[in-house]
Amino acid sequence: MTPEQLVTQFWKAFDEARFEDVRPLLAEGFFAEWPQTGEVIRGADNLIQLNSNYPGRWRCHLREILSQGDRLVTRVEITDGNHVVHATSFFTIDQGRITHAREFFADAMDPPFNRSQWTEPL
Amino acid sequence: MTPEQLVTQFWKAFDEARFEDVRPLLAEGFFAEWPQTGEVIRGADNLIQLNSNYPGRWRCHLREILSQGDRLVTRVEITDGNHVVHATSFFTIDQGRITHAREFFADAMDPPFNRSQWTEPL
Repeated sequence: MTPEQLVTQFWKAFDEARFEDVRPLLAEGFFAEWPQTGEVIRGADNLIQLNSNYPGRWRCHLREILSQGDRLVTRVEITDGNHVVHATSFFTIDQGRITHAREFFADAMDPPFNRSQWTEPL
Repeated sequence: MTPEQLVTQFWKAFDEARFEDVRPLLAEGFFAEWPQTGEVIRGADNLIQLNSNYPGRWRCHLREILSQGDRLVTRVEITDGNHVVHATSFFTIDQGRITHAREFFADAMDPPFNRSQWTEPL
């Protein structure tokens, strides 16, 4: 399985809320870092439990993958049908398993100041 | 100049608030997309003006680069000394210039539900 196939399976399992199915994709010492909240999730059990208990049903649409050596970035749109969160995940891969993920979750927001003279609607 | 050198110069200019110096790094038809706010910034003039008028003095610390073909991702910590914003930028490069950027800005936040039984402090 290539690194691209590995993370595609990872996000497909999340998309389908089959959290237990990510277990074989993770290395023994796997951990995830979420710098925005100052949290570390250590081990497959914690990742699976946390996501199994996450309120709501969130679909995960994998939009982009970039890969360089043992590192890989995904861009995913996560949505419950009302909100869209843009997730960027920096993965490290070793021997066909994910050893580390550093993830950022970017919510919709209003522009922080009036800058409409320099922008157009997307 | 390699793509890595190109975006390193881009972020160094932003870090030092030398916004005019990004102009030669951008292709003729450059545009940036900010999906969180639904904004497009079209052309060097708008990018330079918008950032020149951005309230506050923000330093930009380039933490990571991933490159694949004509695409490149940077992870940057942007801070005014009080707040830290984690920026992920997906660039497209053509003939040594940036043609497109899709950027996400992830702010610090509280965990959306009590999940401390599965996490540790970072």
